[in-house]
Amino acid sequence: MIEPDATRLDPTLQAEIEALRGQTAATRRATVDAMEDILHQPFPVLDHGFVRVVDYMGDDGAVVQAARVSYGRGTRRVNEDRGLIRYLMRHRHTTPFEMAEIKYHIKLPIFVARQWIRHRTANVNEYSARYSVLDKEFYIPTPENLAAQSTDNRQGRGAVLEGAEAAEVLDLLRGDAMRCYGNYARMLGEDDDDRQGLARELARMNLTLNTYTQWYWKVDLHNLMHFLSLRADSHAQYEIRVYAEIMLDLMARWVPIVHEAFQDYRMGGMHLSRAGLAVVRRALAGEAVTQADSGLSPREWRELWQALGRPDPDAAG
Amino acid sequence: MIEPDATRLDPTLQAEIEALRGQTAATRRATVDAMEDILHQPFPVLDHGFVRVVDYMGDDGAVVQAARVSYGRGTRRVNEDRGLIRYLMRHRHTTPFEMAEIKYHIKLPIFVARQWIRHRTANVNEYSARYSVLDKEFYIPTPENLAAQSTDNRQGRGAVLEGAEAAEVLDLLRGDAMRCYGNYARMLGEDDDDRQGLARELARMNLTLNTYTQWYWKVDLHNLMHFLSLRADSHAQYEIRVYAEIMLDLMARWVPIVHEAFQDYRMGGMHLSRAGLAVVRRALAGEAVTQADSGLSPREWRELWQALGRPDPDAAG
Amino acid sequence: MIEPDATRLDPTLQAEIEALRGQTAATRRATVDAMEDILHQPFPVLDHGFVRVVDYMGDDGAVVQAARVSYGRGTRRVNEDRGLIRYLMRHRHTTPFEMAEIKYHIKLPIFVARQWIRHRTANVNEYSARYSVLDKEFYIPTPENLAAQSTDNRQGRGAVLEGAEAAEVLDLLRGDAMRCYGNYARMLGEDDDDRQGLARELARMNLTLNTYTQWYWKVDLHNLMHFLSLRADSHAQYEIRVYAEIMLDLMARWVPIVHEAFQDYRMGGMHLSRAGLAVVRRALAGEAVTQADSGLSPREWRELWQALGRPDPDAAG
Amino acid sequence: MIEPDATRLDPTLQAEIEALRGQTAATRRATVDAMEDILHQPFPVLDHGFVRVVDYMGDDGAVVQAARVSYGRGTRRVNEDRGLIRYLMRHRHTTPFEMAEIKYHIKLPIFVARQWIRHRTANVNEYSARYSVLDKEFYIPTPENLAAQSTDNRQGRGAVLEGAEAAEVLDLLRGDAMRCYGNYARMLGEDDDDRQGLARELARMNLTLNTYTQWYWKVDLHNLMHFLSLRADSHAQYEIRVYAEIMLDLMARWVPIVHEAFQDYRMGGMHLSRAGLAVVRRALAGEAVTQADSGLSPREWRELWQALGRPDPDAAG
Repeated sequence: MIEPDATRLDPTLQAEIEALRGQTAATRRATVDAMEDILHQPFPVLDHGFVRVVDYMGDDGAVVQAARVSYGRGTRRVNEDRGLIRYLMRHRHTTPFEMAEIKYHIKLPIFVARQWIRHRTANVNEYSARYSVLDKEFYIPTPENLAAQSTDNRQGRGAVLEGAEAAEVLDLLRGDAMRCYGNYARMLGEDDDDRQGLARELARMNLTLNTYTQWYWKVDLHNLMHFLSLRADSHAQYEIRVYAEIMLDLMARWVPIVHEAFQDYRMGGMHLSRAGLAVVRRALAGEAVTQADSGLSPREWRELWQALGRPDPDAAG
Repeated sequence: MIEPDATRLDPTLQAEIEALRGQTAATRRATVDAMEDILHQPFPVLDHGFVRVVDYMGDDGAVVQAARVSYGRGTRRVNEDRGLIRYLMRHRHTTPFEMAEIKYHIKLPIFVARQWIRHRTANVNEYSARYSVLDKEFYIPTPENLAAQSTDNRQGRGAVLEGAEAAEVLDLLRGDAMRCYGNYARMLGEDDDDRQGLARELARMNLTLNTYTQWYWKVDLHNLMHFLSLRADSHAQYEIRVYAEIMLDLMARWVPIVHEAFQDYRMGGMHLSRAGLAVVRRALAGEAVTQADSGLSPREWRELWQALGRPDPDAAG
Repeated sequence: MIEPDATRLDPTLQAEIEALRGQTAATRRATVDAMEDILHQPFPVLDHGFVRVVDYMGDDGAVVQAARVSYGRGTRRVNEDRGLIRYLMRHRHTTPFEMAEIKYHIKLPIFVARQWIRHRTANVNEYSARYSVLDKEFYIPTPENLAAQSTDNRQGRGAVLEGAEAAEVLDLLRGDAMRCYGNYARMLGEDDDDRQGLARELARMNLTLNTYTQWYWKVDLHNLMHFLSLRADSHAQYEIRVYAEIMLDLMARWVPIVHEAFQDYRMGGMHLSRAGLAVVRRALAGEAVTQADSGLSPREWRELWQALGRPDPDAAG
Repeated sequence: MIEPDATRLDPTLQAEIEALRGQTAATRRATVDAMEDILHQPFPVLDHGFVRVVDYMGDDGAVVQAARVSYGRGTRRVNEDRGLIRYLMRHRHTTPFEMAEIKYHIKLPIFVARQWIRHRTANVNEYSARYSVLDKEFYIPTPENLAAQSTDNRQGRGAVLEGAEAAEVLDLLRGDAMRCYGNYARMLGEDDDDRQGLARELARMNLTLNTYTQWYWKVDLHNLMHFLSLRADSHAQYEIRVYAEIMLDLMARWVPIVHEAFQDYRMGGMHLSRAGLAVVRRALAGEAVTQADSGLSPREWRELWQALGRPDPDAAG
């Protein structure tokens, strides 16, 4: 289980968190002890980023409560919460999961934020570089994350860069980010009485896309799971996946029964296409199947057997 | 200030609420004492309806907190929360208000629910008549709410019905609702071993639109205010406005500073059209203005002077 | 292929449609001949309902065009539109499908409208019974759709009602709808000079839920497919499924390549849970599997083998 | 009226547009001649950006048509379309405006795209720098748009920079963008057989925020007006406002009656707060009003008299 670590925060924020954590109040609302333990605390991500849960509404029981209103007397017979939650997840009854809500404070590179913001069913307040000056912090990949372009996949990563090329790339990334930030600060002229200073809303255009930004991000549990199913997936870009993985871990603390059902019915498992299902049916019946007569493209055929954990019958010999 | 009253609830729900109110836990989340006081308790609406707050996230401070992230160092000078909230409301900076959330349990007639559901930016779990049998409860207006059709407004109400006509209308509403419900129950055949019983998803079609339904409704503060600005308005239908008015009262307990700003900048005040603004400018400059040279339609002209609380200059004679 | 039929429309609407169909203009926009053929024409549904396409934006090419902007140079190698559309569908790249839009005019019973409106990501203008008087039209099921409540499924239908019970149910549905409508008209007092007439916004509450309403409904192709995947599914209530089936047929005329991919990757096929996938893997490897050691509930186990079209191994012995 | 100009496009896109404009088809859909004239053609914005309308659905009549379904018989008396549209705009009946839709192809700097994307109620397909290589094009302000930070407004612009400072700023912006792009291309190593080449999804982080991106953006007329009311406003940042102004001009060609009503009731005019309205009422009644007894802050007081086009009574002395 991952652990919070506040050492990377600036002292102002550290003090603010300590003050917040020192205050408790009595409430009649649904409360989750495992969330209270980590509330406000930062979980480090990448080189300067973090995820903090700053508020939550509801628990596993909130999902059950909403479902029981929907299904009314009809749910009296399902007298076990876990069974009901698993039933809802299996049959994609999504609205009860919208009844729990969570709010994070997140620090992340701008190019990650640009991908993230495409999830429109959430609330966001981002640090505004029209109003304020961004911090001097950039994402620089660690050497083992410095991947080459994949040669067989337009969107993927290949092997890790090595030797002189890797060293040069790190130098360029670091150097350009530093120079651009330096000139951003110079153009702002905040500490220079001899300069008028360029408007902040203009100066920001000189920053590189690995500059860190931050935001409050609030989302309901259903839309959070949709986000996680895409971004904690192995096809997601590494730099956003590491955020999603931490949020998945935090979700397990918040709503453990929903989390288990989510793993069993959404993250685990696979979707069979119409033709893929026909192949599986024939294979289970003992028929010989070949790609040529499967209705699947060669690529779908390969992916099917890989997902099924079985050798490709065509390759078998 | 309105008061909760549980006497109209069925005993099962009364007991459930008492149990919920008996449980408290310590939390590090923002907590509002005035909300804790009324959490879970029902506020009566119409003849059988109610509104209960069952959960909330955030307080006035949550709006400030989100705004300060957005505007960063830029807000250091605004060192007073009330001033910042009023600034946000005045300039329609809406995203910080999305950072607080509230969840209600509401009982309401179906024809009101049909109007309400048009607000799409909320989460809903409604009691399902596919799964369960609806309660035998209908909305019947009180005599003073039995309004005639307005003669000058296609959507409005006129004078209150009187005498024999009023009495007959009440009889018809009550009689039809009872008969339809009786036949609904008969068709379901739940207690009748001699009948197969019509599917619930079909039998429900025999109910009248004043039958009560219920739902959980969850919304963020920004979208709540949008709902209230339309539904607590004097043009809203009485039967939905009474719900909105209670929710407005509850909002004052939850986020008093936001509520005050909402009254000052959204609910109070008025919008001047381009031509209306020109009329006001000319009138303030001491010019004589007439409808004929105002660019306003006769109706807009009348409405303008009414809103300004001044006699119609054309009528002044 | 289903055919339009205007005979059930009132003459005013018939004339309006004929006038609309008589007008053509030249356009540089993407145009689909098969849609032009049926534009504006009503397709009958249930006893008084219909679906009409009144406008559309884009075609299969609009999806491709948007995807090629997203993937830029990266898609030059995928030089076949059908392949690209199938790739997008398979990998749930949903945004290009949002770039096509369709608008319908639909007449439907109120209890169906209540289910339909839960799909929030669409635009709706419904006939308002605050402003206007509803038509005297109700949905009455045909005898073969008069299903009993399912005994093993809280939400489903069982066998068809028969004999005296069926006859009585039809009588009750027809009688109550007629009486309620008659009293609605009487309370409105539109043709009765001796009555003030109850406000329309109140009188409507006396109508039964099988009364027909109508609306314009506009949705993008992605959200349409989401709607169809739920409502054209065999678990959907018959009275909404018949609408979805016609819309699916119309979709095949509009965007035939997207429709084919939708059938292959979404409507056909199945989702395997984590435990279900493990069972399939073991079965394909020749292992004996039993429900007891599968991690599946008895119900999931039964449903799995049914979906796979294979006999239940536990039952085989 | 602004004019299209294709000279800045790359030849491939120019040829594509010419081909598209050469094709016409007959349609029964609502068609707007003024839109057909400019369909597909680029309108230049900033130094390398553009806006092109690539599709549209509906016209002024589509708004009327939807409203007449909503208000049914109730609208028969309003027999003039313009009057109905103005009524809808004045009373904020927004759903009929959702029934028209427009789709643009837009090229814009990344920092503008980041602001734009906050409008969530639209559909977007952006050029993906995970899949493809971005063009070597950056936004560099013209000298007259090189504004200093406002001294009295955290978010605004002050005077134009002059002399050596202006020249240096332009040099820095140009130099940093060029260097970062050059190193981006070098890290990609696309034409260099001796390099593995950094993954595109990583290399993009080295680009500056003034690099141009492009997207398809599709939105309904109601949400378009919301966007324009914020972004064509004088408080919006210049670099997004120039896009909004062109879109406003294009809207006038598309839906001229809606555009006129939008100008009269939304863009023109002003909102009076509760206290502001009280001041206007008293002033119209001939009372002397001072800021001190107005309930307005000094800033609100100043802004009120400015908006009313009258001298500040306190300053009149």
